[in-house]
Amino acid sequence: MKLALIGFGTVGQGLATILRDRGETLRGDYGFDGQIVAVSTARRGSLYDPNGLDIVALLENAQDFSGYPESEGLQRGWSTEQIIREGNADAVVEVTPTDITSGQPAIWHIQTALESGKHAISANKGPAALAFRDLNTLAKANGVEFYNEATVIGGTPAIRLGEELLAGSGITEMRGILNGTTNYMLTRMEGGATYMEALTEAQRLGYAETDPTADVEGHDAAAKVMILANVLMGGDLKNADVPRQGISALSLEEVQDALKNGEHYKLIGKVWREGGQTKASVELMRLPGSDPLAGVAGADMAITYSTDLMRHATISGAGAGAIPTGFALLSDLLAIHRKSHHA
Amino acid sequence: MKLALIGFGTVGQGLATILRDRGETLRGDYGFDGQIVAVSTARRGSLYDPNGLDIVALLENAQDFSGYPESEGLQRGWSTEQIIREGNADAVVEVTPTDITSGQPAIWHIQTALESGKHAISANKGPAALAFRDLNTLAKANGVEFYNEATVIGGTPAIRLGEELLAGSGITEMRGILNGTTNYMLTRMEGGATYMEALTEAQRLGYAETDPTADVEGHDAAAKVMILANVLMGGDLKNADVPRQGISALSLEEVQDALKNGEHYKLIGKVWREGGQTKASVELMRLPGSDPLAGVAGADMAITYSTDLMRHATISGAGAGAIPTGFALLSDLLAIHRKSHHA
Repeated sequence: MKLALIGFGTVGQGLATILRDRGETLRGDYGFDGQIVAVSTARRGSLYDPNGLDIVALLENAQDFSGYPESEGLQRGWSTEQIIREGNADAVVEVTPTDITSGQPAIWHIQTALESGKHAISANKGPAALAFRDLNTLAKANGVEFYNEATVIGGTPAIRLGEELLAGSGITEMRGILNGTTNYMLTRMEGGATYMEALTEAQRLGYAETDPTADVEGHDAAAKVMILANVLMGGDLKNADVPRQGISALSLEEVQDALKNGEHYKLIGKVWREGGQTKASVELMRLPGSDPLAGVAGADMAITYSTDLMRHATISGAGAGAIPTGFALLSDLLAIHRKSHHA
Repeated sequence: MKLALIGFGTVGQGLATILRDRGETLRGDYGFDGQIVAVSTARRGSLYDPNGLDIVALLENAQDFSGYPESEGLQRGWSTEQIIREGNADAVVEVTPTDITSGQPAIWHIQTALESGKHAISANKGPAALAFRDLNTLAKANGVEFYNEATVIGGTPAIRLGEELLAGSGITEMRGILNGTTNYMLTRMEGGATYMEALTEAQRLGYAETDPTADVEGHDAAAKVMILANVLMGGDLKNADVPRQGISALSLEEVQDALKNGEHYKLIGKVWREGGQTKASVELMRLPGSDPLAGVAGADMAITYSTDLMRHATISGAGAGAIPTGFALLSDLLAIHRKSHHA
């Protein structure tokens, strides 16, 4: 499978690292041969070789493509559009940074890929949160796939669990801890840290950005809840459809008071059906200790699926990190590979 | 897909109920048409109709087949062997009670099905725990599937999570709460009940048998740990290979002392690789509150997968019940359906 990576930051490099280190296993155990033919970035330019780029050299020169060795088929300076439309990739991997207001240019990248008959997989939350229905329709019309496993709980296969493994069980509701940064902060506040101490610590560890708004005000959780609603429960939600709450108004006293009663404050994204419509919200909730989400601690995330046939199932795992997220991208590629190679 | 059910107790009836109530959805959403052509039981005899049994009438007469209405193709009194070998089922569903010492007659049923070119799926723990490697080899040789999702955590798709969704991530270890009865008892002891009180309550609720040995001495957990080792980590373990511990020696004082320190006693099944071999054990452990398994309460069960590429992922859910287990069987059937109908 020939791959074009649009964006080549930590997540894209995570995928490349996995393909470099586990290529042998993937070929032997799963008959999957992933070959990067192009990388395109906003600031470092692009590399395209229809015969495949050398992954070792690509990772060594990830910060400055000028050091990547010349070869016969190599093209430098193709535009992203040219790579997507005219390149020979089977699948386009969208790993540019998320812009959750417009979803661009990621939506355009994916639209172009699907129109060109190429599979599209994305670690970028914009496309699946803001334009899933249109893009998925476009994918089906072109006989290709549009997958987004990397957008929710990183390497933990939460979307495919709902889509494939719970198929037929009738998902009626999803409730999740969808933002690792705020969950880490809430856990630290249970340990006695004030909100500001917890935030500073999260920033020092790289969990929170210098401007932490997207995390602490619930925007990131809202994007993920929209993805779950759209991909797993047929929703077509806009930002304005999702009531949203953050954790910034929560005091240490409230957290400690809950804890004394065996309860835990958690930022909960929720998706449910109501009056024939798919609804979603992000809400700061005080959960009883018996809730499957109450014990999910630190930067871990989790989703509880309620279904007609089996009450509830919860999946939890570590979200962040280049390699876990790279694995989520790989799992999308393997799913495409399985689909095209079954008897 | 034509189905022969070997055994027709609560689990078999659970599957039949799902096919009756959700047949429309399964046909519409997944193109899956599951038709029961035969049921065979040890005490109630058998029914076989190559054109399909009437599920409504079958469930109404589940306790006494003599009330099932006559029809042209109907055969009464075919033997289990005849149904498996000569019947027209595409898949044999093994739902007889587990005998974890010999695995029989379930192993023989499944072997016969696979030899006859029929898929075999099982809610019975014997075959996958005691004879997985042989049966799986036989399935491959005959171009059919042998699936066991219903054997571990009922309706929660724990096996397929490890087998399909974590494919390529390199599972290095599994640790799980694999027995709901003992987990319920441990949770009650944390609530202040003595071991005997907790056991009596579990028996009253139908979680524990009159003879609770299989649960409280860890035999049931050991069977499940063998299934995980065999199916997901290439093991070929025998009963004697699995060191086993139960919960019957645990006192209320020990449970309460752990709780005071934020710790939880849990009966943990573990599978890992060591010196090129797959090892497994069942052990009563005192877990720190931060362990993803520490918060799994009541009759819920859970498995934590550690992998090369994504640290850990944990799935938890309710295990027991006819409908959840019936759903697990359905999920195996849907997986076979997907495999045979992908482009």
